[in-house]
Amino acid sequence: MRGFASDNFAPVHPAVLGAIAAANDDHAPAYGADPWTERVERRLAEHFGNEARSLLVFNGTGANVLAIRAACRVAGAVICTEMAHVNVDEGGAPERIAGVKLFAAPSADGKLSTADVARLSSRIGDDHQAQPGLVTISQSTELGTLYEPAEIAALADAAHERGLLLHLDGARICHAAAALDVPFAALSTDVGVDLVSFGGTKVGLLGAEAVIVLRPELAEGLRYLRKQSLQLASKGRFLAVQFEALLEGDLWRELAGHSNAMARRLEAAVRDLPVVEITQRVQANAVFAVLPSAVTSDLQREWPFYVWDPATGEVRWMCSWDTTPEDVDAFVAALRTALA
Amino acid sequence: MRGFASDNFAPVHPAVLGAIAAANDDHAPAYGADPWTERVERRLAEHFGNEARSLLVFNGTGANVLAIRAACRVAGAVICTEMAHVNVDEGGAPERIAGVKLFAAPSADGKLSTADVARLSSRIGDDHQAQPGLVTISQSTELGTLYEPAEIAALADAAHERGLLLHLDGARICHAAAALDVPFAALSTDVGVDLVSFGGTKVGLLGAEAVIVLRPELAEGLRYLRKQSLQLASKGRFLAVQFEALLEGDLWRELAGHSNAMARRLEAAVRDLPVVEITQRVQANAVFAVLPSAVTSDLQREWPFYVWDPATGEVRWMCSWDTTPEDVDAFVAALRTALA
Amino acid sequence: MRGFASDNFAPVHPAVLGAIAAANDDHAPAYGADPWTERVERRLAEHFGNEARSLLVFNGTGANVLAIRAACRVAGAVICTEMAHVNVDEGGAPERIAGVKLFAAPSADGKLSTADVARLSSRIGDDHQAQPGLVTISQSTELGTLYEPAEIAALADAAHERGLLLHLDGARICHAAAALDVPFAALSTDVGVDLVSFGGTKVGLLGAEAVIVLRPELAEGLRYLRKQSLQLASKGRFLAVQFEALLEGDLWRELAGHSNAMARRLEAAVRDLPVVEITQRVQANAVFAVLPSAVTSDLQREWPFYVWDPATGEVRWMCSWDTTPEDVDAFVAALRTALA
Amino acid sequence: MRGFASDNFAPVHPAVLGAIAAANDDHAPAYGADPWTERVERRLAEHFGNEARSLLVFNGTGANVLAIRAACRVAGAVICTEMAHVNVDEGGAPERIAGVKLFAAPSADGKLSTADVARLSSRIGDDHQAQPGLVTISQSTELGTLYEPAEIAALADAAHERGLLLHLDGARICHAAAALDVPFAALSTDVGVDLVSFGGTKVGLLGAEAVIVLRPELAEGLRYLRKQSLQLASKGRFLAVQFEALLEGDLWRELAGHSNAMARRLEAAVRDLPVVEITQRVQANAVFAVLPSAVTSDLQREWPFYVWDPATGEVRWMCSWDTTPEDVDAFVAALRTALA
Repeated sequence: MRGFASDNFAPVHPAVLGAIAAANDDHAPAYGADPWTERVERRLAEHFGNEARSLLVFNGTGANVLAIRAACRVAGAVICTEMAHVNVDEGGAPERIAGVKLFAAPSADGKLSTADVARLSSRIGDDHQAQPGLVTISQSTELGTLYEPAEIAALADAAHERGLLLHLDGARICHAAAALDVPFAALSTDVGVDLVSFGGTKVGLLGAEAVIVLRPELAEGLRYLRKQSLQLASKGRFLAVQFEALLEGDLWRELAGHSNAMARRLEAAVRDLPVVEITQRVQANAVFAVLPSAVTSDLQREWPFYVWDPATGEVRWMCSWDTTPEDVDAFVAALRTALA
Repeated sequence: MRGFASDNFAPVHPAVLGAIAAANDDHAPAYGADPWTERVERRLAEHFGNEARSLLVFNGTGANVLAIRAACRVAGAVICTEMAHVNVDEGGAPERIAGVKLFAAPSADGKLSTADVARLSSRIGDDHQAQPGLVTISQSTELGTLYEPAEIAALADAAHERGLLLHLDGARICHAAAALDVPFAALSTDVGVDLVSFGGTKVGLLGAEAVIVLRPELAEGLRYLRKQSLQLASKGRFLAVQFEALLEGDLWRELAGHSNAMARRLEAAVRDLPVVEITQRVQANAVFAVLPSAVTSDLQREWPFYVWDPATGEVRWMCSWDTTPEDVDAFVAALRTALA
Repeated sequence: MRGFASDNFAPVHPAVLGAIAAANDDHAPAYGADPWTERVERRLAEHFGNEARSLLVFNGTGANVLAIRAACRVAGAVICTEMAHVNVDEGGAPERIAGVKLFAAPSADGKLSTADVARLSSRIGDDHQAQPGLVTISQSTELGTLYEPAEIAALADAAHERGLLLHLDGARICHAAAALDVPFAALSTDVGVDLVSFGGTKVGLLGAEAVIVLRPELAEGLRYLRKQSLQLASKGRFLAVQFEALLEGDLWRELAGHSNAMARRLEAAVRDLPVVEITQRVQANAVFAVLPSAVTSDLQREWPFYVWDPATGEVRWMCSWDTTPEDVDAFVAALRTALA
Repeated sequence: MRGFASDNFAPVHPAVLGAIAAANDDHAPAYGADPWTERVERRLAEHFGNEARSLLVFNGTGANVLAIRAACRVAGAVICTEMAHVNVDEGGAPERIAGVKLFAAPSADGKLSTADVARLSSRIGDDHQAQPGLVTISQSTELGTLYEPAEIAALADAAHERGLLLHLDGARICHAAAALDVPFAALSTDVGVDLVSFGGTKVGLLGAEAVIVLRPELAEGLRYLRKQSLQLASKGRFLAVQFEALLEGDLWRELAGHSNAMARRLEAAVRDLPVVEITQRVQANAVFAVLPSAVTSDLQREWPFYVWDPATGEVRWMCSWDTTPEDVDAFVAALRTALA
């Protein structure tokens, strides 16, 4: 099966599987007390700064919920966009497991603005409303768009001046850093971000994510929250080595950069097709477009991808680390045929 | 590193890693909509009966909490032993995430009795107390002991006649089934168990467990609860193939049986040593013994294992699928030296 | 202090205080096991039908959260309007305490439509999203408007055909029933409502509300949920007699009807004033109007009332059981002066 | 009905009802923004010290759960006795609503010891176990016994040196202070207590309790937690005036002292009866005794009281503010008859 459904339809990068096999030797302390975990936590601190403290978890929802729990020890609400993954694709876990209400702002491009933060914070001090304690943004966004570092800095300021923290849902932080050609810290530590969900699965891992807190006080009790949030892996070395492989020689940049390039290739090839309308800037590894629904149905027979909005016919084409130029070209050819 | 610390210090069985590598081919639908998952769910239904419905999750705490949430939709309490994993080693997740209170019975051998169920159910109908809805037992127990099928049947009757369900925490169900030389259903479906946490990690998987519900009505909404409980794997095929490998050719019985045999070998070798007192029946893959603390400290320098009860000096020696006769013999030799 | 701030700024009706004093005689079983409670539950069943089961609680948020917990034992989301009290004025309790996500529909008149129910139910069956299990509407609404019984019936159908339940937040159900001149059942039992929060405090009680379930299966375990939700009063007789006094001789209809009449009197007096723009139909005991902000500030010096929307200058004037025609006339005179 | 079932079977003291009636005049700001509330909060600070911050709530379970939520923002467990009200009579609310696990120590006299605190804190730092953050003790205890101030100070030290806070469940703090003839601060502020649930209902209020925090940092966000925990009263003045009446002229000391005296009278009268065995020191308003079950049944026909332990035949006789010497004497006469 080839397709553009999701970057988690893709397999595991061979270097990651190789690292797992290499670590599968003899006994090792369980629950993250192993040397691989210690090493990868140091590696992450090199990327995110000396104050950074990281904890490995199983999946993106786990990372986001743990980050929310770490941040919202008093507060009861989180500010995000309407299409934020925490808001629409996490099964109510932020509400049920972290216990927070989400204040969601409409957004045309998937990005949150400082005006949104201001507006959704307007009832701070009113005990009838859940009190916001955290702003969360996705980088790259669920619509494949990017925040410039200066935009993140402005959101951090908007959050901090109201007593809120800023979380970066980096399920695709590798794609963002590769696209902007910056180190991770330029999108986080250096611009006032307080917590990061660092995503690995969508860029080629088997299944591993990290919660990285950039303020020491947020680390207090964090590992207890991880255990309680069902995110402490038994044989922890096998999460750690996945991240080691990803960070080794900046493999992440290569894989994410390739995904992004494939999205650009796809966009370039379809941009001038009749009827097809590109709806979002293609800045990372996703292309959003409006298609006639008959074309969509026709095309989906061979090429899996998702309809994003049934009302408008908008679809999402997601490229992954293993998408080949040939995949893109064959898909575009199929699209041309379907359009004809 | 060799040792007797925990069966999750052990590595992954090669057949399991091989199955992961074999499945790492091309795209596959994410979140468990892949053919491997479908296949392994059918396999599990062959073992647990046609009514059985299974969902794969990341870890044992995740499995137990999901099972509790599935069972306790009205009720607010769960009956268990004091040393139950849910009670002492899950970081308060049953309380915080599933929202239940645990009613814990003291137990000398790690087993719950029907009298415990009766006593801890005595305030059913009194709205000042959390109402029990579930009984949970571990098989094999945290003390390495076993319930006979008839004992489970009696507990199921005791639970059901009070309107409670029965959950089997089968983190080591393979060890139990191998030790008793029975199929899984003889410990669950056939004796009135309503839900099972089927453990894979401790018997040689990289990291995968399953929640298996044996009453169709418990499956209602279960997959929503899994997602919300942070237990839905993105690249689900890699959980599924681990279980496939484990079930293939009854690999589980071979691995668990070997672990059990190593524990018996260890017990046989130490039973008659002076000073060493075996404290529990060795029925599965654990040996519990009381040692002088100086001996323990000495021995732990080379051989990792846990002190179970610092007050009495009781220690736990856990054998795993990769424990060799040579490991046991070398350990016993070291123990003899330390005792001398 | 006189004013139009809120119907809970008003005092307790003398008949209610009288009933409390009358019940303050000698010992009585605590926690609702008293004869007053039994009697008022029977009275409520006369109003809501033989299947109705009611439980008394402390406040409106308590009633709504308990109703949500009763309804959402599997489901994880509740459909409501954006301005619903559960969404904006309950401090995140539905999310944190009941554990549900709210799906909130924009609404110009405070009312939910069947189209809203359809749209917000569109991802039923998708385990990435919280699954709706309940629709909740407020009657009268937070904007002082009313649902006709037929509208409620249509919403009940829309809910039921999707497997959802319908809850009526009746913090002002007395005002609605008085305005529509119908019995309570015409707004609930007879039109498919499954659960009701029956409000007493806003119509003249000291502090008492009831959760009324209209399907027997929803009563299962409900009293345990009440206790656990911190809503079981110790000296329960003093909640019960408040409701008895309210239902006695249809005092509720008199008090609510009077509140409604005062709102109509106010509306009639201001409707034709220059600049003042009435923004919602005045169907119950609230008047919403847009005023110049200088006028608002001026007027608030003597007469407490709330600005509803600082952006538009919309204000809310709420009449209560003790609002007098003289209050209304004096307030209107002050408004005329401020406008001049 | 007269009896010894519970101090919340008793009615409301007339001065309390009188204060409610006196406050029932005209409009007042809702939700605790009224002058009565401000005044009573100042009164409480006179008793508990200038740093004390108090919030009024509906009932004892609400007060305890709010106190736990205030204290356990990181931690996941609370240390208490096995018979603590939070452990056995709050319907699982601490677990489900506050999200904590309870570590419960057996206790012969209802009191917790510093050794209990040490033992139940032994796994601090182990992320597999819920981490204790709070110790809670009841004063007077559920068995009618008392902590001396020095005992509380020792528990506070034991808690603080492990990084835990100390909570006093003062459902009957008035009875304790009256019995020990000390001010409230001598049992709390002056001996290291960090949070208090101040009970009013059992000493003669209609229904009102207070959470009092004695460290300023615990007040952070506390009123949002109160609202979210369903404990914010709409017409807040009617909670405030109950406490005003109770504190006025030390009415609390008179009422609690009387209850205690009645318990002593009862104890003195039955102490030397054949068969009757007093099981606990009578230090506050409860008498515990073992009776033959036939005698108990006989006596309960006319005089309501509870069997505390069906296994041993232990019963509880609770005196209240309205228990009269004649009640005691008639009850003792009935007991003598039943024994004969």
